[in-house]
Amino acid sequence: MARLVLKFGGTSVADIQRIERAAEKIAREYKAGHEIAVVVSAMSGVTNKLVGYCDEITSMYDAREYDTVVSSGEQVTAGLMAIALQKRGIPARSWLGWQLPIICDDIHGKSRILDIPTDEIEKRFKGEEVLVLAGFQGVTEKNRIATLGRGGSDTSAVALAAALKAERCDIYTDVDGIYTTDPRVVPEARRISQISYDEMLELASLGAKVLQNRSVEMAMKNNVSLQVLSSFNDEIGSDLPGTLVTKEENIMEKPVVSGIAFSTKEAKISILNVPDEPGVAAKIFEPISNANIIVDMIVQDVSSKGNVTGITFVVPKEDAKKAEQVLSGLEILKDAEVRVNQDVAKISVVGIGMRTHAGVAEKMFRTLAAKGINIGVIAATEIKISVLIAQDYSELAVRALHDAYNLEQAEV
Amino acid sequence: MARLVLKFGGTSVADIQRIERAAEKIAREYKAGHEIAVVVSAMSGVTNKLVGYCDEITSMYDAREYDTVVSSGEQVTAGLMAIALQKRGIPARSWLGWQLPIICDDIHGKSRILDIPTDEIEKRFKGEEVLVLAGFQGVTEKNRIATLGRGGSDTSAVALAAALKAERCDIYTDVDGIYTTDPRVVPEARRISQISYDEMLELASLGAKVLQNRSVEMAMKNNVSLQVLSSFNDEIGSDLPGTLVTKEENIMEKPVVSGIAFSTKEAKISILNVPDEPGVAAKIFEPISNANIIVDMIVQDVSSKGNVTGITFVVPKEDAKKAEQVLSGLEILKDAEVRVNQDVAKISVVGIGMRTHAGVAEKMFRTLAAKGINIGVIAATEIKISVLIAQDYSELAVRALHDAYNLEQAEV
Repeated sequence: MARLVLKFGGTSVADIQRIERAAEKIAREYKAGHEIAVVVSAMSGVTNKLVGYCDEITSMYDAREYDTVVSSGEQVTAGLMAIALQKRGIPARSWLGWQLPIICDDIHGKSRILDIPTDEIEKRFKGEEVLVLAGFQGVTEKNRIATLGRGGSDTSAVALAAALKAERCDIYTDVDGIYTTDPRVVPEARRISQISYDEMLELASLGAKVLQNRSVEMAMKNNVSLQVLSSFNDEIGSDLPGTLVTKEENIMEKPVVSGIAFSTKEAKISILNVPDEPGVAAKIFEPISNANIIVDMIVQDVSSKGNVTGITFVVPKEDAKKAEQVLSGLEILKDAEVRVNQDVAKISVVGIGMRTHAGVAEKMFRTLAAKGINIGVIAATEIKISVLIAQDYSELAVRALHDAYNLEQAEV
Repeated sequence: MARLVLKFGGTSVADIQRIERAAEKIAREYKAGHEIAVVVSAMSGVTNKLVGYCDEITSMYDAREYDTVVSSGEQVTAGLMAIALQKRGIPARSWLGWQLPIICDDIHGKSRILDIPTDEIEKRFKGEEVLVLAGFQGVTEKNRIATLGRGGSDTSAVALAAALKAERCDIYTDVDGIYTTDPRVVPEARRISQISYDEMLELASLGAKVLQNRSVEMAMKNNVSLQVLSSFNDEIGSDLPGTLVTKEENIMEKPVVSGIAFSTKEAKISILNVPDEPGVAAKIFEPISNANIIVDMIVQDVSSKGNVTGITFVVPKEDAKKAEQVLSGLEILKDAEVRVNQDVAKISVVGIGMRTHAGVAEKMFRTLAAKGINIGVIAATEIKISVLIAQDYSELAVRALHDAYNLEQAEV
């Protein structure tokens, strides 16, 4: 007997037929003798519709009222799922954020979970009851509903799994796991059976948007094993092939490279003729940060000519214009030249094995060079190397790298 | 300065445009210096859709989960209305049943309000805040959402008005008041400016379904004046023509007849050759009542032939078959004959003035006779006379009676 948290995303509860199908899966895990808490999202499309209502009235809505409106989607699914489980003879009860309760801070619209008391849940488990929790929501000290931000049901599920010390948190979604890269670009892309939290975070932030990043961070912090599974498959979590996201120590074979991520959502900004004096980086990036622009891949020229240097970094494409305006107003850059290049793609090679294996970067550069692809900027962490290239070459680069690291082959 | 409860029904908050229009009305009452609590229904169509979801899974759903699902509609409107009011510079806050709270019993699906603590509301009123309450719902002692039955938002509004000792409860809907009869049948039908609770109850139960009956009963018991108003009109409650439902003493001119109601939803059941012995009525109506069939207009023949008599009554058309089956199984009726007539209409003349004026019934019978309409069964209360006639004549009868009592003329 295990204790499991099963989370079903919007497409997995999109209509009554799919809710019934999800209920079947839950029923089979239940009948296998497990203790089960279920977390549900809103039926797909519902949250967007509710957000649209708020936007239609005003763009300056009160986040507390927004939370009251949008949290209703998960409420509906929770009640329907409880009914679907009861129909299968399973004692089930829905729980809204304020009922369990899921205690949150009062940063409405992007609240954080502070505490989940487990007494009631433990009591219900003893009575062999399945709990169906409405995801995405909690209640503040002031007795107001707060939501956790888009994709927040993943966070609800992981937080619940952590509070309950669950053996596993199964995330049922519309894909059957995390792939070595986007299968639409590389048809040979392979599902990864196990991946570490660190790798998942690097892949998620780069576009493999299966799990909300915050939920992966929370899983890592609380040591909750996450399993990404397809709800459109007939098996259940314990038998189903998917991707297990877990701590590095649990992964037996550590592949040098786990996946290739890419993104065309960033623009490159280069500043030439920057005065090469102490504190100049702060004078540039403070105003950028104050304008709420997220900066990545900062590189400063190694060789400065005389008393000037060059600085390059990337920002989200939609913020490039704003960043340029901010920079053009800076006294320190009055003699500098700012160049913006929207035509770039960021390609990243991710793998925990890099920590112990040399030559990964060298193979990346060699592979891209062999295809005649020029590398703009390079940035690296312990388990990731990212390069900027011309956007036109992004798919070619991903395919070549996927092939170079033999990612289409089954893991050892 | 008055204290007002303003209730907006489903068609009055059917989309964002209408919610904004309702917010305009509220804003104008607020700016006139009144203390305002608003009660909202779900956007029209939403509750039906949510009920449909439950039905799609099973007809045997748990009422607690049904309540969790369907109460979400009012939650959405409450949040949106608060946003629409804030946009107009009005401090407003939404309140769900569990937040205020509206304390209910645990008869889920048709719960009754037990208590509405007013401390929080009084505090908010002092802060010049408008409260927007999600109608139709409350919370049980077990911390579960309970709903009040279809049309329950009217009940929420009246209960709130009673708890707050509000000067008036304005019910904004898609009609501008209560009419002397259905204007689709009699184009000359006139809006009644004032009507007593008793008359309203008689008219409501007979088809003028503008107000939920339970809410009128509650208003009567708590002496809450109700005003029925159209939300599609540009004026606001204090200036708007509508119908005021209030206690008889408040009505200056008491018309002898206030309105003509009619219904074609009943069937007539006649039992011939019933043994004329003590207790026979109980032996017939107990099993009918046990089968959950509502009986009206019971008439027993005055003259019994020998030791047998006849009994006639009406039941809802959809229950006629079931009633016939119940009767056919009764030992006491083994020699009796049961006749069912689906082709009947019930026509009722309603007016508190009947209490003090003679001749109302006589005029009714004379008017129908003049049109050659045969009267089947007659039943009367202090303020209502009902007759059964052949269904084909129902519209003719209503028109003739409306004319005979001069209902198209303005009240004195």
